[in-house]
Amino acid sequence: MEATQLAEQLKKNKTPCENLLKRRFFYTNSFEIYGGTAGLFDYGPPGCALKAQLENLWRQHFIVFDEMLEVSCPCITPYSVLKASGHVDRFTDLMVTDLVNGECYRADKYLEDVIESVLSTLKGKSVSDNVNAKNAALLKLGCEELEKLQNVVGNMTLEDVESFIRQHQITSPIGNELSKPFPFNLMFQTTIGPKKDQKGGVNSVVYLRPETAQGIFVNFNRLLESNGGKMPFAAAQIGLGFRNEISPRNGLLRVREFLMAEVEYFVHPEKKTHTRYHEFKHVELRLLPKDTQERGESTVVTMKVEDAVGNGVIANEALGYFLARTSLFLEKCGIMSQGLRFRQHMSDEMAHYACDCWDAEILTSYGWIEVVGHADRMAYDLKAHSQATNTQLTASQRYPEPITVEKVVPTYNRPLIGKTFKDKNAKVLQILDNMPQEESIKIENELNATGTAVIRSSDGHEFVVTRDMLSFKTVKSVQCEETFIPSVIEPSFGMGRLIYCILEHSYKVRPAQNQQEERTYVALKPQLAPTKCCLLPLSSKDVFNPLIAQIQRYLNSAGLSYKIDNTGASIGKRYARTDEIGIPFAITIDFQSVNDGTVTLRERDSMEQVRLSSEIVADIIADLIRGKSTWEDVTTAHPIFTQQEV
Amino acid sequence: MEATQLAEQLKKNKTPCENLLKRRFFYTNSFEIYGGTAGLFDYGPPGCALKAQLENLWRQHFIVFDEMLEVSCPCITPYSVLKASGHVDRFTDLMVTDLVNGECYRADKYLEDVIESVLSTLKGKSVSDNVNAKNAALLKLGCEELEKLQNVVGNMTLEDVESFIRQHQITSPIGNELSKPFPFNLMFQTTIGPKKDQKGGVNSVVYLRPETAQGIFVNFNRLLESNGGKMPFAAAQIGLGFRNEISPRNGLLRVREFLMAEVEYFVHPEKKTHTRYHEFKHVELRLLPKDTQERGESTVVTMKVEDAVGNGVIANEALGYFLARTSLFLEKCGIMSQGLRFRQHMSDEMAHYACDCWDAEILTSYGWIEVVGHADRMAYDLKAHSQATNTQLTASQRYPEPITVEKVVPTYNRPLIGKTFKDKNAKVLQILDNMPQEESIKIENELNATGTAVIRSSDGHEFVVTRDMLSFKTVKSVQCEETFIPSVIEPSFGMGRLIYCILEHSYKVRPAQNQQEERTYVALKPQLAPTKCCLLPLSSKDVFNPLIAQIQRYLNSAGLSYKIDNTGASIGKRYARTDEIGIPFAITIDFQSVNDGTVTLRERDSMEQVRLSSEIVADIIADLIRGKSTWEDVTTAHPIFTQQEV
Repeated sequence: MEATQLAEQLKKNKTPCENLLKRRFFYTNSFEIYGGTAGLFDYGPPGCALKAQLENLWRQHFIVFDEMLEVSCPCITPYSVLKASGHVDRFTDLMVTDLVNGECYRADKYLEDVIESVLSTLKGKSVSDNVNAKNAALLKLGCEELEKLQNVVGNMTLEDVESFIRQHQITSPIGNELSKPFPFNLMFQTTIGPKKDQKGGVNSVVYLRPETAQGIFVNFNRLLESNGGKMPFAAAQIGLGFRNEISPRNGLLRVREFLMAEVEYFVHPEKKTHTRYHEFKHVELRLLPKDTQERGESTVVTMKVEDAVGNGVIANEALGYFLARTSLFLEKCGIMSQGLRFRQHMSDEMAHYACDCWDAEILTSYGWIEVVGHADRMAYDLKAHSQATNTQLTASQRYPEPITVEKVVPTYNRPLIGKTFKDKNAKVLQILDNMPQEESIKIENELNATGTAVIRSSDGHEFVVTRDMLSFKTVKSVQCEETFIPSVIEPSFGMGRLIYCILEHSYKVRPAQNQQEERTYVALKPQLAPTKCCLLPLSSKDVFNPLIAQIQRYLNSAGLSYKIDNTGASIGKRYARTDEIGIPFAITIDFQSVNDGTVTLRERDSMEQVRLSSEIVADIIADLIRGKSTWEDVTTAHPIFTQQEV
Repeated sequence: MEATQLAEQLKKNKTPCENLLKRRFFYTNSFEIYGGTAGLFDYGPPGCALKAQLENLWRQHFIVFDEMLEVSCPCITPYSVLKASGHVDRFTDLMVTDLVNGECYRADKYLEDVIESVLSTLKGKSVSDNVNAKNAALLKLGCEELEKLQNVVGNMTLEDVESFIRQHQITSPIGNELSKPFPFNLMFQTTIGPKKDQKGGVNSVVYLRPETAQGIFVNFNRLLESNGGKMPFAAAQIGLGFRNEISPRNGLLRVREFLMAEVEYFVHPEKKTHTRYHEFKHVELRLLPKDTQERGESTVVTMKVEDAVGNGVIANEALGYFLARTSLFLEKCGIMSQGLRFRQHMSDEMAHYACDCWDAEILTSYGWIEVVGHADRMAYDLKAHSQATNTQLTASQRYPEPITVEKVVPTYNRPLIGKTFKDKNAKVLQILDNMPQEESIKIENELNATGTAVIRSSDGHEFVVTRDMLSFKTVKSVQCEETFIPSVIEPSFGMGRLIYCILEHSYKVRPAQNQQEERTYVALKPQLAPTKCCLLPLSSKDVFNPLIAQIQRYLNSAGLSYKIDNTGASIGKRYARTDEIGIPFAITIDFQSVNDGTVTLRERDSMEQVRLSSEIVADIIADLIRGKSTWEDVTTAHPIFTQQEV
């Protein structure tokens, strides 16, 4: 199936799929009985279990596999940390308000909607006098021009948005004048402790973190130490992020509180490699590089990691490694390959901290959705926190061979300096000790030329030094170790979005047959399935109870989650009910079971059944879930059973 | 070992244990490089992994075992929900402030501290002129009176605290006058959406949830439906809770953001039973009932669940069931039995929503700490949300036999009512339809006596009705089903506190011997251990690499987390390092391994080693962790190895 066919199918399934997810309580809008809160969602039993399984799978695939250092930091984050990281100033969306009624709109999404509705009018899909009257200026542009605008509106600057609104006389949905666009900070702000800071400062101002990454960066030194000082290494965090969206929509795809799973891979800035790269360099990736997009195209090209790294499409091995690992992970989750692409950010859409970024995008009924970001954050964050706290956040690494370096070092006449500067003595020495190389050479030249020079402290004090107080000399030294601020490669997963994508990709329809109506099911991979099996006695008669209790004990001891359905519904109806919540295996207990202790085991996707001993059924399911055996192995080893289904 | 001995040992270990936990980055104060934020903690790699394992163990023990319905709701919670639940009005601590410098103190803890320091002075432990001068009034009371006060100060009302401060002339730590006590709400407050609510209302006010329970209550109807309408059932949630503590302290024991794991068991208010009660009624519990405490005693009594329920110490079977399950869980976690007790709340310390409460308290170096609450919340929450939203939150259950009930029902003259009340017609009918039984009888009697009667709407409107409009009649009906608001039994775990208690209970010291110094280790149960094993090549020589890579693959495929330590340190030092972070098993690769593919496997607590094939070592560790085999089984099946350790 091609991506275009998949897109059509997902769109066709959208409404029945979302109805099923709601009906079976995969998720729902939060605080429903209070009218609901936009952008907040509750995961019900199947959704919540899927989330827990996904978290475990992620931990296995990334953290355990690569011996990453996992941390868990609070959501509440002080002002100073997010000021340094740039989020206080730059974690914003542009907003416009209706100048009459005060309604707020996220500028880019609002303009996209306006353009979309004008386009619909032009294409004759919807004819609305309202749209026509309000958007006379836009209508004149014509389809081609509007479609171009639609693609760039998301990356417009404040000035661009302002002039766009003025030029095309864009109004609010009810025709009122719009405010000038202004940045709206998306962080939730609150205060910590019993009182507001009385010094007029910001010590009690805290935010809910917009990403989990900062908790890792501020712990860099402890993490490096935990890793025995060895570079490179990766740290990871699974936890909540928050974003006070101006106008949340599209269900789980744009929400205000979300589970993230982030890796920060710390690596030498000039040697961005990974020790296990060779194991994954043959993985094929579906790429949409920025060059392609800048040509206005969207054709995906399939390339091996090593080829993409080799020809410079992917900047370095480390980035290639993580793109490959992400691709394999998404495959494990049941994302269809033709519904996955890695799209490189264009230079005008990058976050403030990144120099290169590849998004894993998944095709959904809402179009291509960004689910995993892979950013090269360089040393941006470590530098920012280092400066803000005067703490060194560096790593060091032995050179393969010791190297010789030239360094300018001062020689002092300490008694004279002490006598001259008295209590400022230490300060002067500190300035001189920390003077950048070029500055030292300049001072040395000045002293040679004029006999005096002026040095400055960071807080603006000036001191006059003389030739007889000091001289700078260039010395050679042998160095075995290099000290550097590591670069960071960051794969960052939006787990809520991924859950939604997995559900859309797993939603299946069984055509109507044998007088049964069409039935839908959720073909979740057994490892991710919310409940691993269900236990169905043929009827609710007491005669089945001892065997049910025994199988329950087997399932408990194998650590398998299960559901018992002993309602009076027909066995076919009960299978359909378990299929809807993605339960991969069903154990059916019939009258033969009572006599000989055998049960039947049914697999959800094939609907095949085998007959086997109730004593081994739990272990067989456990092996299937762990991937130690396949359903084919089971059907080979045990007799196929055909009776109950019909 | 007795509880008193354990208490001494824990106190003795306190400082070295906390040093180890900090040094090996189990946890640390958050945002340390920014000076740290009080009451917030980061879990480093071993702490974070322990937390993840504990979460999984809890999910297995509670959710999977009892087929509970797990949900996951947001931390951000609207004003209206927490207003209804009582938290906006009553989730407070009493605070006092220094009237001169504005410093804030949590009243109960501050008074406890003041009394403690006066007691120390009286007992000659510390002699401080400062204490003496400030607390002249308290000093006069004497030790016995002060010790009594110390126990009640935590449960004092606002008025009690106020008069206590006045009567004993309590001042701030630096001798300034204190404010009157006032309630301080402990919820973090923020606003959601782009603008403050313009109607002057509270629609944009949200809080960070103080407990996860409310998310379950507001979803009651969906959960009941997910359970096929069947009662009783349990729902559960693992997630963050927040509490803006006035003065956080004691490390992980009093924090501002914490992981909770809560069960809400919905049950018939007059039949508080549990279907699996019989499986656990023989479990022995260490109880400290309220009667004992009210006599001023603290002797723990050991009792079987069925006896405690039988003699009324524990109010009902459901509560007994969960106390037993919690006790077994804490044992699985490695909590020592003499360091565990279940303390019943006295009537003056209960939360606003509870009618009975038992805390699982664990002995630590800080004394007995509440780690799990078991509250009988009755129908408090469901009633509150039902009233606030006009939504029915009820369950129904078939009677064993249909019963006959009498009911008063109205008969109307609809045309006359319609003609009389016109557009108020529907309102009048609504009042009459929903009239309580006694009220209906009263109206009927009035109509009989005077021919007219007055009925009132909930918003205060009055309507005069007459005899010819309606009459009430008593009819008999047969009912098969009873509708009721369920009661809730709630076990609520503070996971951060539990982690700290597990670490204190697992901290062990190996006496010095064989010229080695005393060594400490963390004897975490294998199932909870942050890392399951370590891989130690005898040296960092390349010859070991192929075997390391092969064992890595085995460990990956068994899903086991591991650490490789190929530093040059002696094998004994490396064992000590892994013992400190609680790694239960070590695989050592020596020169014999290179020849015959065998390795040694070492168990942390016994320090015993066996020699076995590298091909089976991962599976053997996996079985040990899952509890499928014991270390004894392993030492029986494989030859003991003694060489490397010495």
